[in-house]
Amino acid sequence: MTWSIYLSGEIHTDWREQIADGAAAAGLDVSFAAPVTDHAASDDCGVAILGPEPNKFWHDHKGAKLNAIRTRTLIEDADIVVVRFGDKYKQWNAAFDAGYAAALGKPIVVLHPPEHQHALKEVDAAALAVAETPEQVVAILRYVIAGRLAGSTDAAQAAE
Amino acid sequence: MTWSIYLSGEIHTDWREQIADGAAAAGLDVSFAAPVTDHAASDDCGVAILGPEPNKFWHDHKGAKLNAIRTRTLIEDADIVVVRFGDKYKQWNAAFDAGYAAALGKPIVVLHPPEHQHALKEVDAAALAVAETPEQVVAILRYVIAGRLAGSTDAAQAAE
Amino acid sequence: MTWSIYLSGEIHTDWREQIADGAAAAGLDVSFAAPVTDHAASDDCGVAILGPEPNKFWHDHKGAKLNAIRTRTLIEDADIVVVRFGDKYKQWNAAFDAGYAAALGKPIVVLHPPEHQHALKEVDAAALAVAETPEQVVAILRYVIAGRLAGSTDAAQAAE
Amino acid sequence: MTWSIYLSGEIHTDWREQIADGAAAAGLDVSFAAPVTDHAASDDCGVAILGPEPNKFWHDHKGAKLNAIRTRTLIEDADIVVVRFGDKYKQWNAAFDAGYAAALGKPIVVLHPPEHQHALKEVDAAALAVAETPEQVVAILRYVIAGRLAGSTDAAQAAE
Amino acid sequence: MTWSIYLSGEIHTDWREQIADGAAAAGLDVSFAAPVTDHAASDDCGVAILGPEPNKFWHDHKGAKLNAIRTRTLIEDADIVVVRFGDKYKQWNAAFDAGYAAALGKPIVVLHPPEHQHALKEVDAAALAVAETPEQVVAILRYVIAGRLAGSTDAAQAAE
Amino acid sequence: MTWSIYLSGEIHTDWREQIADGAAAAGLDVSFAAPVTDHAASDDCGVAILGPEPNKFWHDHKGAKLNAIRTRTLIEDADIVVVRFGDKYKQWNAAFDAGYAAALGKPIVVLHPPEHQHALKEVDAAALAVAETPEQVVAILRYVIAGRLAGSTDAAQAAE
Amino acid sequence: MTWSIYLSGEIHTDWREQIADGAAAAGLDVSFAAPVTDHAASDDCGVAILGPEPNKFWHDHKGAKLNAIRTRTLIEDADIVVVRFGDKYKQWNAAFDAGYAAALGKPIVVLHPPEHQHALKEVDAAALAVAETPEQVVAILRYVIAGRLAGSTDAAQAAE
Amino acid sequence: MTWSIYLSGEIHTDWREQIADGAAAAGLDVSFAAPVTDHAASDDCGVAILGPEPNKFWHDHKGAKLNAIRTRTLIEDADIVVVRFGDKYKQWNAAFDAGYAAALGKPIVVLHPPEHQHALKEVDAAALAVAETPEQVVAILRYVIAGRLAGSTDAAQAAE
Repeated sequence: MTWSIYLSGEIHTDWREQIADGAAAAGLDVSFAAPVTDHAASDDCGVAILGPEPNKFWHDHKGAKLNAIRTRTLIEDADIVVVRFGDKYKQWNAAFDAGYAAALGKPIVVLHPPEHQHALKEVDAAALAVAETPEQVVAILRYVIAGRLAGSTDAAQAAE
Repeated sequence: MTWSIYLSGEIHTDWREQIADGAAAAGLDVSFAAPVTDHAASDDCGVAILGPEPNKFWHDHKGAKLNAIRTRTLIEDADIVVVRFGDKYKQWNAAFDAGYAAALGKPIVVLHPPEHQHALKEVDAAALAVAETPEQVVAILRYVIAGRLAGSTDAAQAAE
Repeated sequence: MTWSIYLSGEIHTDWREQIADGAAAAGLDVSFAAPVTDHAASDDCGVAILGPEPNKFWHDHKGAKLNAIRTRTLIEDADIVVVRFGDKYKQWNAAFDAGYAAALGKPIVVLHPPEHQHALKEVDAAALAVAETPEQVVAILRYVIAGRLAGSTDAAQAAE
Repeated sequence: MTWSIYLSGEIHTDWREQIADGAAAAGLDVSFAAPVTDHAASDDCGVAILGPEPNKFWHDHKGAKLNAIRTRTLIEDADIVVVRFGDKYKQWNAAFDAGYAAALGKPIVVLHPPEHQHALKEVDAAALAVAETPEQVVAILRYVIAGRLAGSTDAAQAAE
Repeated sequence: MTWSIYLSGEIHTDWREQIADGAAAAGLDVSFAAPVTDHAASDDCGVAILGPEPNKFWHDHKGAKLNAIRTRTLIEDADIVVVRFGDKYKQWNAAFDAGYAAALGKPIVVLHPPEHQHALKEVDAAALAVAETPEQVVAILRYVIAGRLAGSTDAAQAAE
Repeated sequence: MTWSIYLSGEIHTDWREQIADGAAAAGLDVSFAAPVTDHAASDDCGVAILGPEPNKFWHDHKGAKLNAIRTRTLIEDADIVVVRFGDKYKQWNAAFDAGYAAALGKPIVVLHPPEHQHALKEVDAAALAVAETPEQVVAILRYVIAGRLAGSTDAAQAAE
Repeated sequence: MTWSIYLSGEIHTDWREQIADGAAAAGLDVSFAAPVTDHAASDDCGVAILGPEPNKFWHDHKGAKLNAIRTRTLIEDADIVVVRFGDKYKQWNAAFDAGYAAALGKPIVVLHPPEHQHALKEVDAAALAVAETPEQVVAILRYVIAGRLAGSTDAAQAAE
Repeated sequence: MTWSIYLSGEIHTDWREQIADGAAAAGLDVSFAAPVTDHAASDDCGVAILGPEPNKFWHDHKGAKLNAIRTRTLIEDADIVVVRFGDKYKQWNAAFDAGYAAALGKPIVVLHPPEHQHALKEVDAAALAVAETPEQVVAILRYVIAGRLAGSTDAAQAAE
């Protein structure tokens, strides 16, 4: 079984690459999906394809709906949803994705710096893991998918 | 049919009362539900009932889970979910509720001031109405539930 | 058990009243629901409540979404969905409602004049009954809900 | 992930080929499905296989049900449903398919000329995109599936 | 909680009355539903309401679909489905109802004489109880709904 | 897309082989599944594997449950369910499978000789096609899966 | 809204009565359901109603299935499932109920003495609250259903 | 079709290997999945990856949730769930898995020594087979997946 992992949320740092690189290094049978991470494209896709809107609300509306075609399909296809909250912006779409995944019964891993802990307590309460670093997410995937844990199963395997 | 309306989100202004009063004045067959809106109780319910936690994460975790018993049950029972975003705080739980309701296929009405428009575009894209005032939400409920629209069906009724 | 019947489609004749009157005369334990049948209100509700739109597409869009809050909720609540196609207009919303009800597994009764037979063959194929008159729909409800059939069970009852 | 796209609706122009050709040219990982587009076969399949019917209603009924085996299975298997409304005929089956897809929670793209806008407002309100040309549908698939947007992500890639 | 019991199957003996009488005597909080048990009405309802059919297949088809409106709605509404197989006829509709109820996850009680045991083994395997007499079904309902068992809880109550 | 076809029902004639051969000859992208068609094995598998039972009811019960592991899994996996009723036996398991498939929303094709028409009217009413011969089932699969109809699309292809 | 609470698990102490009494004293709008708590009746109901079995496995099997009619129906009807583990016996049925409720997405409250903590860690991980006393369960219900918390909202109300 | 089998429960004997070896020897088209069977890793994965917890409850909680990511995903992916109860420990997680699988409608095979029969009667009542040895489970898989039964279909094949 190839596990499908959806990486939702913050798009301004390379956390997705770190997780993908870590998973590749661990040899995991896994595929990653994500929203479109080009901020300008994500904002303007609607009007770029379907025509301009003088009203900013509809400009955004058209784009957000196109993005929803992608994000909802990929979340529904995912075995695990990782949601990352970064330092900036409101990031309501990340919290929306977490709620969406929760209602679908998807296992959720939340990834955020400790200072957001109180504000994210409802999101964390719906998660099966709360991590602070991409390395921890890789370690979770490595354990959950392959059953390997540094210092434990690894030691056992080395001893064989 | 009595319509069940869940009023999610901001708990520091009286918008829920305004909507309930407006619905009562309009004579709608409707019942309202909401999260616990006492901020201190909502934060501390977990440790108050189940015992203290020295670690703030688990303090919050216990409380957020108790609140989830209430909020998820009431969202699943709702015919319409209204989600209010106010001026302050991160309000990730409001966006989480919106995502949760969206995945359940619930009709969503979002209520927020215009300055949040861009940041809420993904949430708005999942909604069937985006309002700026509680009066508009009352007018929506009045139209959707009772089929009455100021200046239109009302005029027709007055003419009879 | 009170049966919930949703009466979808054409809004320019009194077929809903005929069915409701017939059901009342038959003493059926039934409640009826319908879209907002005031054409002007149905078209303009969005902008009347949420503010004007210079672009006709968004004018209609806002209204259609408000109507969707009502229609989808009532279709999902219905035990039987009756869909009426009349003589005029495209009536794509009626066919949309029929498809929506079909995917939810709702029993569908289609009501249309014989000249639409070929064009409606896919809709009819998803229905459990295809009627031509409101009286037939009343007879269906009378049989399905109360088990009474003119000339058969009625005769049996009269003989008792 | 190979995306499954169901192309519902009008069968008298080559819009399906235009979309398939555009998707192939863009190198998208996608598979297309459609109803049987041979009009005569679609009308007569029931009686051709299962025996003649003197009554036109049952003639059509047998055929519409065979077509339903195909269309419902493919809609349920689809990741995105594109529904095309053309210039002629009632096209109630296209609207039916849209309603069916909506109730299943499938992302819907509607494709129609501007003159149908008002009559299709309920269908458009259930869609995540409303396009006027097959080229726009291709651009949507290119963006949604591959994250590439002409003049934006493409420019970024060209600059690398 | 009022328990809804659907009594499917054989319509030529008074087993439904025996169960209803027994439940009433036991004071159970229960409501019963059933197909239309007037054999002639059940066979002819389709053509009686919707017009005659020269072909027996379509004569039966119209009627069977009207009956399906009733039976599927009531099975989906039921908490327990009792399926009775009698001595005569093929009774494929009873087995169909059992399969329908099984796929919906409804608790099934099968009621049949011992000589049908081998032929009904697949149906029995999907049931939570296999009874031979209406009295046993009443005893099951009495135990399951009210927690009362002759000679056990009854004795305990009498001793109080 | 490879279509999965489940062939339920009668196990004493070679109708499954006829359909499989016909589908292979037509070059259809299809896979077939079926219950265990060795009658003795199907009856005795439970006690053969899990130990003997002196009581015939439990002897049958153990076997019927093992068979249910296979049949329910394969029906749930199927895109189309074909149910065959033959000349002999009660065949309640075939009707049960039809009901099970109907409640799951699977397209059903019923295959039976004309003399069973009245007794099978409820089953036929839940089907999208009622055939009398395996050749007709092959023609249905050929049309539904590949869009090819003898004398129509075939002629069109031959003319190219 | 009346909340339905299912009280699963241990049947040898009066914890159900303590919770019901506490909820009544708090004036909560709640109804409680439970398995049959008469141990002998629960063990023997199958053979008492449906006839004796010489083999203990089938003796138990018949009874366990009758109990399943009750327990699964009531768990599916519940808004909250409370699962109590006591000091004695294997109590696998309590853990089974917890897993059943978890897969249905029901909010779970686990009630057990601290010494079972490690053995119940998987069950606790699926719960929204882990309590040690019936009083805590009452306090949870009081907070979740009525929004009242001792020392917090109560103080606020007293101050009014 | 490759059948997915989830092997839940006891982790201290080699029963999983016996079943996998037997299935391989029988040439079955099957894939097996299981929880992490390294006891120490399973207990400590949470704190090893996400940081230490002084409180044993949270130590266990973090680990149990990581394990739930794996186990729930694999159970939901499974076609058949085998649950093994061994001689030692409370094994509440095995019973929880059985309840979880039952609510999802998965076919369940329970594997336990005869002395646990009475305590496991509710779990056994939800199963489609109750086995005592891994060899029996292999024989079940061989029959259910490949339709081969020792002494019956095998003899038939040998005779060909």
